[in-house]
Amino acid sequence: MEKDRQETLKIGLVGYGRMGRLVKETIEKTSGVECAGIVSPEYNSELGQIGGKLDVIIDFSHPSNLDMIVSYAEKNHTPVVFATTGYSAEQIKEIEQLSQTVPVVYTANFSLGITVFQQVLRQITPVLRDVFDIEIIEKHHKMKLDSPSGTAKMLLQAVEEGREYEKKYGREGFGKRGDEIGIHSVRGGTIAGEHTVLFAGEDEILEITHQAHSRQIFATGAVQAAKFAAGQNPDLYDMNDVLFKKEVTE
Amino acid sequence: MEKDRQETLKIGLVGYGRMGRLVKETIEKTSGVECAGIVSPEYNSELGQIGGKLDVIIDFSHPSNLDMIVSYAEKNHTPVVFATTGYSAEQIKEIEQLSQTVPVVYTANFSLGITVFQQVLRQITPVLRDVFDIEIIEKHHKMKLDSPSGTAKMLLQAVEEGREYEKKYGREGFGKRGDEIGIHSVRGGTIAGEHTVLFAGEDEILEITHQAHSRQIFATGAVQAAKFAAGQNPDLYDMNDVLFKKEVTE
Amino acid sequence: MEKDRQETLKIGLVGYGRMGRLVKETIEKTSGVECAGIVSPEYNSELGQIGGKLDVIIDFSHPSNLDMIVSYAEKNHTPVVFATTGYSAEQIKEIEQLSQTVPVVYTANFSLGITVFQQVLRQITPVLRDVFDIEIIEKHHKMKLDSPSGTAKMLLQAVEEGREYEKKYGREGFGKRGDEIGIHSVRGGTIAGEHTVLFAGEDEILEITHQAHSRQIFATGAVQAAKFAAGQNPDLYDMNDVLFKKEVTE
Amino acid sequence: MEKDRQETLKIGLVGYGRMGRLVKETIEKTSGVECAGIVSPEYNSELGQIGGKLDVIIDFSHPSNLDMIVSYAEKNHTPVVFATTGYSAEQIKEIEQLSQTVPVVYTANFSLGITVFQQVLRQITPVLRDVFDIEIIEKHHKMKLDSPSGTAKMLLQAVEEGREYEKKYGREGFGKRGDEIGIHSVRGGTIAGEHTVLFAGEDEILEITHQAHSRQIFATGAVQAAKFAAGQNPDLYDMNDVLFKKEVTE
Repeated sequence: MEKDRQETLKIGLVGYGRMGRLVKETIEKTSGVECAGIVSPEYNSELGQIGGKLDVIIDFSHPSNLDMIVSYAEKNHTPVVFATTGYSAEQIKEIEQLSQTVPVVYTANFSLGITVFQQVLRQITPVLRDVFDIEIIEKHHKMKLDSPSGTAKMLLQAVEEGREYEKKYGREGFGKRGDEIGIHSVRGGTIAGEHTVLFAGEDEILEITHQAHSRQIFATGAVQAAKFAAGQNPDLYDMNDVLFKKEVTE
Repeated sequence: MEKDRQETLKIGLVGYGRMGRLVKETIEKTSGVECAGIVSPEYNSELGQIGGKLDVIIDFSHPSNLDMIVSYAEKNHTPVVFATTGYSAEQIKEIEQLSQTVPVVYTANFSLGITVFQQVLRQITPVLRDVFDIEIIEKHHKMKLDSPSGTAKMLLQAVEEGREYEKKYGREGFGKRGDEIGIHSVRGGTIAGEHTVLFAGEDEILEITHQAHSRQIFATGAVQAAKFAAGQNPDLYDMNDVLFKKEVTE
Repeated sequence: MEKDRQETLKIGLVGYGRMGRLVKETIEKTSGVECAGIVSPEYNSELGQIGGKLDVIIDFSHPSNLDMIVSYAEKNHTPVVFATTGYSAEQIKEIEQLSQTVPVVYTANFSLGITVFQQVLRQITPVLRDVFDIEIIEKHHKMKLDSPSGTAKMLLQAVEEGREYEKKYGREGFGKRGDEIGIHSVRGGTIAGEHTVLFAGEDEILEITHQAHSRQIFATGAVQAAKFAAGQNPDLYDMNDVLFKKEVTE
Repeated sequence: MEKDRQETLKIGLVGYGRMGRLVKETIEKTSGVECAGIVSPEYNSELGQIGGKLDVIIDFSHPSNLDMIVSYAEKNHTPVVFATTGYSAEQIKEIEQLSQTVPVVYTANFSLGITVFQQVLRQITPVLRDVFDIEIIEKHHKMKLDSPSGTAKMLLQAVEEGREYEKKYGREGFGKRGDEIGIHSVRGGTIAGEHTVLFAGEDEILEITHQAHSRQIFATGAVQAAKFAAGQNPDLYDMNDVLFKKEVTE
């Protein structure tokens, strides 16, 4: 461990809503990092206004900030952690392009549990899909705007590797189940986030469920991703890389 | 207990599919009842062809047999247990009308568990609905034709007593949850039947789940309902009556 | 609503640990109540040291404070909400005795969900117990000291009304299930609290589960209980009374 | 597919209880296999009494038959599928020794779901164990004699690969969770078999659950294992081998 010898990482934070504030608090509680400045209506209007050199950027804001971030990151060779969701296909390409110049971490879910969940799905789905039917059930608070959740889409992507299915976002009426995946978005109360992938076979069921009990785990994961990004070569990374796989290869 | 002094009940069985066969087997294993005859393509084409007087009819067939059954029951004053689903509103009226002349048991689910579940919903929903959001999740085998299940509709009815909601049979796209109930029909494998009613509030969840692990419980309940019906005055009964409430009031 | 015309309730808070602090924050966010003072090592050593008349006491501390609280409450006719657990049988008698002089709310769980859960168990257990086996599973964070939880004991009490069972706190070895209730205390991570009562019958299962996703719901319930207690006649109340039943009967 | 050219496998069945009968029915419904004879009190008292050469043996009886089976298998070079549980350590050595001479499949659970479950545990436990606490919950019918189940022990073994834990078979009293695994055996009704491994971390939970809805899946798996064993070299195999891994290497 050579943490102590390293200098403190200066993080530029874009977005200061519920998640942004939580990330700031988390940075303050984490050794080796500090919040160098914030881009939000109450603070700076762009990253360039934060004085001094930034070591890494965390973005928990909205897609409209993308151009500003990309332009700053390219000019200053600053690694970026994108935690914003809802980008267009074109914007995702922009993120991918940026990752040729600087290290970029981009994911819809920063928890260790979901990262492992994805890995598991990639391994077991090819073995199970011929004899088990697959359905996804996710539960979130009643204020959540998008259905299904970004995380559900990530899990679906893991399930569909090598084989696409028709998707059913609910069922009403008559007709047998086809060669499809049902995706069910339950909404109510203040549920922080629950995702289940159900494999239903002949007289047996295998079911994997992840529950997030607070949004803190997402803030913690984003800060962990920032520390990771600061030490990488330019590339596009996800939480799997942050937690397990890619090594610095200088 | 005066069962021993009673004569064996002669049951006329309408329908000889998977459930009909199971009902016949169950009758054979139950004391105090016997199967007097079957209406199905392989056997008799109508109840009148079964020789001798029937004490009670169990129908596990399809809505097209309704007129035949009603006409026989009215003429012979025979109690009926309707276990068929999918009747039209008009046909349900016909069933209700029949119950003015003979005892009729009509329900979508014959299990003790679901009957108790309904009662519970009637009692707690008025208390919880102002602070908890309600969602229903049901799971059945991949061959099931109707979504949501008849049982889910029964549970919904209990939830909606005194207050109706908009129903959402799945969610996709953007927009906050409204003043609504989400109903999610999961399909896969050979699941015999699972129903969950979820109450999601401020940082707490109350959830009730019923699992049926075989279709035997439905056959057992139907035979129990037949025994009950045979001793009642004309009226419309459900499993709540069979199991708990109404007394013979001669 | 005549809340506005009422005077602000002065609450004396005993205990200033994790739950005590949360109660203080909750009081500050709730209209019609204020925290008049705190008894804890950092503040006052007894209720008498808090200046001015207290309208109600909330105790989230430990059993050793009981005598001090009882003595103050009796002398000043102050209603009390006891949220402390772990009292001896003798101490519980002392609480009961106090309730002859002042209104007392005493419960192991202040959530609406658990209160409704208890009611449901009282109603359905007599109906189900002859044909269903009953087991209780509860899950809490790894730092929790007592197993089973106080709430699990409350639920067990509701199940055992009118009929006691042998209790099994885990199973290892050989032998069939007896006429007993298994109670399973799962411990791990930061789980705020989950309680399941399982009714397992012939090919069917009915299961009720409550999940608490934060300790805020307990603080909110305690403040609600304090508001309730302040307007009652002397008696022993629980959350069922606070939320539903007993009316002021002056 | 060269099934048609192959000769029908003659299976000797040891044990004719509930599972033995189900295996016989399953053999009759499966192409390429036939039941050549049964060892049980009603039929033959040992394998040698079954006329003709056996291609493979399936044993669903009890440990006392082991010597008879081993002696027949060694003499006739007959592959064996052991589905009996409750062997002593010494008997397990005897099975291992037999596998040097003939192909042997030995497992506590023949379902595909549990086999995949084991694999998943082997992969994710090393990644999660430092930050997640692990608990196992299993549910079975009230007549089950052994707690925890043989399958729970198999899952535990997968979790403990490379690292052993203290085991707690239930909790009662005071004290924080140690560096341990809690194993909870729920018993009631007719539950065919449910196994959950819970990973509980900081504000997140990852949970894997397998439900068996009938004993048919175990019979199906045993017949599949018999077909597999008949074509292998001598070795000790489990369901992982049957379903995925080992190839015939002649």
